[in-house]
Amino acid sequence: MSAVETMRWVGGVDGHLELLDQTLLPEETRYLPCHDVMVVWEAIQQLRVRGAPAIGITAAYGLCLALQQPGLSSPAALLEQLGQAADQLATSRPTAVNLFWALDRMREAAASCSEQDPTAWREQMLAEARAIQQQDQQMCIDIGRFGATLLSDGQGVLTHCNAGGLATSGYGTALSLFFTAQDEGKSLEVYVGETRPLLQGARLTAWELTQRGISTTLICDSMAATVMQEGKVHSVVTGADRIASNGDTANKIGTYSLAVLAAAHEIPFYVAAPSNTFDLSLTSGEQIPIEERAATEITHSFGRQTAPADVQVYNPAFDVTPAALIRAIITELGIIEPVTTENVARVLSL
Amino acid sequence: MSAVETMRWVGGVDGHLELLDQTLLPEETRYLPCHDVMVVWEAIQQLRVRGAPAIGITAAYGLCLALQQPGLSSPAALLEQLGQAADQLATSRPTAVNLFWALDRMREAAASCSEQDPTAWREQMLAEARAIQQQDQQMCIDIGRFGATLLSDGQGVLTHCNAGGLATSGYGTALSLFFTAQDEGKSLEVYVGETRPLLQGARLTAWELTQRGISTTLICDSMAATVMQEGKVHSVVTGADRIASNGDTANKIGTYSLAVLAAAHEIPFYVAAPSNTFDLSLTSGEQIPIEERAATEITHSFGRQTAPADVQVYNPAFDVTPAALIRAIITELGIIEPVTTENVARVLSL
Repeated sequence: MSAVETMRWVGGVDGHLELLDQTLLPEETRYLPCHDVMVVWEAIQQLRVRGAPAIGITAAYGLCLALQQPGLSSPAALLEQLGQAADQLATSRPTAVNLFWALDRMREAAASCSEQDPTAWREQMLAEARAIQQQDQQMCIDIGRFGATLLSDGQGVLTHCNAGGLATSGYGTALSLFFTAQDEGKSLEVYVGETRPLLQGARLTAWELTQRGISTTLICDSMAATVMQEGKVHSVVTGADRIASNGDTANKIGTYSLAVLAAAHEIPFYVAAPSNTFDLSLTSGEQIPIEERAATEITHSFGRQTAPADVQVYNPAFDVTPAALIRAIITELGIIEPVTTENVARVLSL
Repeated sequence: MSAVETMRWVGGVDGHLELLDQTLLPEETRYLPCHDVMVVWEAIQQLRVRGAPAIGITAAYGLCLALQQPGLSSPAALLEQLGQAADQLATSRPTAVNLFWALDRMREAAASCSEQDPTAWREQMLAEARAIQQQDQQMCIDIGRFGATLLSDGQGVLTHCNAGGLATSGYGTALSLFFTAQDEGKSLEVYVGETRPLLQGARLTAWELTQRGISTTLICDSMAATVMQEGKVHSVVTGADRIASNGDTANKIGTYSLAVLAAAHEIPFYVAAPSNTFDLSLTSGEQIPIEERAATEITHSFGRQTAPADVQVYNPAFDVTPAALIRAIITELGIIEPVTTENVARVLSL
């Protein structure tokens, strides 16, 4: 499990959600109590909770909060409320597909729910959200188990952004490989790209790794090429926010750069992601919508203005790495290698 | 000339140096008065003045300040004082060779000075420092004139760190290409990498370009690959801090990454630098000393702590780009293309 809980449901069907506010890390560990779906929406939009799997789990619990509204006395009224809340939550962030996957799963569970009593119906929905969270924990374990076979004792590995416990409700995706390798007695040197503009690598990944006692070296994103050139890195492992059916992978901005650099240095580049990160409705990565975020994320670094007021800014939050640059995708169902449409379909049907 | 003066000598032989404190830009334009060589040393070490040519000019003026010390009544005493001050200034930063070039030039001028009167001797030294500054201004103009021929109207170009007026005492090196192209009526779209950790791209280059009315888009360093992938960039131009005789080039960390990415996207990568940036005593870039700077530059971004306290940090200030990745080096003497030991020697002897 992760060193801290990324999200937790407190109480029963009338309980509430608590989210670890990741914007305050590593300086402060504070939970945000969420009693309302709009608080959840804001938390996702403002990256208080982030990471594709964690967003999905959070959204599922957010729907449970929406169902607590007074006056919902029939399954039909509950179903309508759930649909409205799901539509709302779907607008929070566009790229990570796990959000839509989780909302769809909750909608399907609601539609097929045989309960007529509103409280029993709501309990069923909460059970579904809890199942999503528990399955995520198991997926993290399985990803780590498959992926750790790719890492050897004494190697240097590079990761980007945060694909750790904080991006999931368990071990993480990319970081699960490192944690599992550690559990197996392998010693790794992990290089962490700080991940501008919001520094998820510095603030979150470095924090998770050092808490676990893994040797961790923080670098600026622009130094990745240098540590590769110096022979310090033997593989690169990242998470994913959406993967098309051909294996093209959207992930945090800077991932594509690392994949190109890894190829130039003949270093394997791996993606670690659960099966619900795949969007099989897309034939290639060109169809993945890429979120653009506010210019101030770049121009006002942590309080201080660090760029002229009149400069234009381009701030895509994600990029797309072509499947050809990915040596393998590690899922909870197995390893997809080489990354082809056929192998994606084959492993996902296991 | 640059929009502002990077450094200026105020008064005559008993005058002083004023440095634009670049750590305060773009929020504040404040000059640091320097009456003492140690203030100059600190300004270079703390990056209040930075950029290879600007460091050289500043160090030359710093020696003039050292010669103002009372009691230096003979050329021999002046010469000894100059030697001590030059040794001191040489410890300020290790990578940019223009620092050592300028100090050596001042030492040589001192050794060959025929003046016996201390005041006349000091005037000769000040004249030498002024000559270094004036020649730098002309070199910037000539680099721009040669380099602008490589850029076409309507193109997108990418630059990194600051190789502008603020890195020189004139138009700049890499930015001189853009300014000259603008003067020639060519419209460019300039992408500027923010240049972590100290954001010289965001704070200095974006400021210089927007002040000149050049269309400028700021990106994080990790987004360079994406703007290349999207076809927005037709060439990459950077400055240099030291170039070996085979053309291997040390420049701000992140430059090597851009050169690899440019090669992968079949985009020409250019270096713009005056001839005094070459270190012909080195046969390859492996021999260039690379400065490592404080971890806090990465872990404490502009005031706030943004990484766990116990994380290791690797913070090289420069990297080395192999000559094979550089399409051409633009000097004030002409364009070196292809970049080979023979062509370096040929152009530098022009």
